[in-house]
Amino acid sequence: MISKDPAELLAAARTGSRTALARLVTMVESGGPVMRAAAALIYRSEPAYVVGITGPPGAGKSTLTDRLITSGLVRGALGDVTFDQLGILCIDPSSPFTGGAILGDRIRMQEHATNDHVFIRSMATRGNLGGLSLAVPDALRVLGASGFPLAVVETVGVGQMEVDIASAADTTVVVTNPGWGDSMQANKAGLLEVADIFVINKADRAGIRETRRDLESMLDLGGERAWRPPILETTATDGSGTEALWDAIAEHRAHQVTSGDLSTRRRERTRRELAKVLGAQVSARIVDLSHGEDYEAQVNRLLAGESDPYSSAEILLR
Amino acid sequence: MISKDPAELLAAARTGSRTALARLVTMVESGGPVMRAAAALIYRSEPAYVVGITGPPGAGKSTLTDRLITSGLVRGALGDVTFDQLGILCIDPSSPFTGGAILGDRIRMQEHATNDHVFIRSMATRGNLGGLSLAVPDALRVLGASGFPLAVVETVGVGQMEVDIASAADTTVVVTNPGWGDSMQANKAGLLEVADIFVINKADRAGIRETRRDLESMLDLGGERAWRPPILETTATDGSGTEALWDAIAEHRAHQVTSGDLSTRRRERTRRELAKVLGAQVSARIVDLSHGEDYEAQVNRLLAGESDPYSSAEILLR
Repeated sequence: MISKDPAELLAAARTGSRTALARLVTMVESGGPVMRAAAALIYRSEPAYVVGITGPPGAGKSTLTDRLITSGLVRGALGDVTFDQLGILCIDPSSPFTGGAILGDRIRMQEHATNDHVFIRSMATRGNLGGLSLAVPDALRVLGASGFPLAVVETVGVGQMEVDIASAADTTVVVTNPGWGDSMQANKAGLLEVADIFVINKADRAGIRETRRDLESMLDLGGERAWRPPILETTATDGSGTEALWDAIAEHRAHQVTSGDLSTRRRERTRRELAKVLGAQVSARIVDLSHGEDYEAQVNRLLAGESDPYSSAEILLR
Repeated sequence: MISKDPAELLAAARTGSRTALARLVTMVESGGPVMRAAAALIYRSEPAYVVGITGPPGAGKSTLTDRLITSGLVRGALGDVTFDQLGILCIDPSSPFTGGAILGDRIRMQEHATNDHVFIRSMATRGNLGGLSLAVPDALRVLGASGFPLAVVETVGVGQMEVDIASAADTTVVVTNPGWGDSMQANKAGLLEVADIFVINKADRAGIRETRRDLESMLDLGGERAWRPPILETTATDGSGTEALWDAIAEHRAHQVTSGDLSTRRRERTRRELAKVLGAQVSARIVDLSHGEDYEAQVNRLLAGESDPYSSAEILLR
């Protein structure tokens, strides 16, 4: 029988138990006190280097990720980060239940399920305050603490939430297609801001030149930057461009290490994560505050016209 | 020059100054300390009886509201509530700027702008934590405190937010059309839950019988209730059905007063409003907590792997 103790699970995950690893991810997904205990352990380990992949549904991200897994394991290194296993989180925030996520899993599993060097996990929701924006960084920490030096987080969609999750990575890859305009128009500025690398997938299709020109002129508008996101072309279905993408990720990592951007970004990310956790903890307290004698006493005062909600809230908060 | 003091403004609004009234609404819309001062006054007066009107865009709510204003002012009473003026709030949460709201104003203004007995105000957003879900109840309180015994709040759309705002009323009217299925499918359950009265507007169109049957069978599924929402038919363009709608609103009010539902609902609404204000106040404090020396010290501990976000948040909250 598998343990329920986070420390035992982590020890087992570190020696290769996928069951223990999966259970740890479930723990941080579900939240609650046992998650706190797990968090106390996983956040004290070196974090994985995280590659985020995002883009509209149908852009071919899953196939591209598949290709990256295969050729990444052959490489075994991203600059000075060496690895013999890869952790992948597939996130679909738009799917409240796990239907879509499971489907994604299955498609990938065909190739990698039996591969001991790959851990793939789908996450669609979290039964806890803070939702995926807290669960994903926690799950990435589980991977790091379990001995994955490199992790990939793939999100489906280009809404603000998907982009936020993907951009909480060390290198963010935005996947587009020829004729990308329509599918990404809604959040063009957001995508442009988070992209470290642009990929035009399905490069065998018509319209690639226009798409590249569009992206270049958007990048031009953004002005001078120390790192100008390269625009790569891939055809995930036959694997062409995958090696160049790994090279670009490695270059971006090297740039970040040399420039100090990596630690700046991790600091910013840590600041945001802490703010989110703070928000979730406080929300939980509000739920507590919104019950009981003191609360009802203020409700009575309000109904009697003896107070206003702002004054009553101040009193409850004291 | 008009005063900036809430007490002076309220006194002026009570003696009929529309400029003072409009400024008070602007105060509660914009939030901040002056809003707190205003809130301390307006929540100490008797609240208006509030009729909420909601439904999908294009259902004819504005025309129907126009008709209600005209015939309401002729009636001058809703059961024991007598009035010689009506306050109307038109809410469009989907419009981040006031474009749509202003348009709505203009259309209505043609008929009522010069009418001293009508105060119409559009609200589209609030530059403050809590947004419209706080600003609308505050604005309704302004109307009540300024001497409006009856107020109408009209929201455009059937999303959860629109429905929440409209249902924070004493009587909630859901406006549909023949063939309503498509436009309301997304939030059918939500609408069914909040509706005290259903109106099938554009009753001169085909499909009214099917729409009524659909609504009836949905209501049947809801089981026995002390108040079963009546289903009325109106043609707002020629005004037919308006009088019956006023009668239904009056009946619902009478039912609520007799059954005690009015005070039960007002208590529940007060409880929710206080919880929302509490949430907004606490959110403001989180922003404060997410800066400064203590916060950066915790960020440093996190980066050094000496803590996890949950423990750090606990420390900051202490």
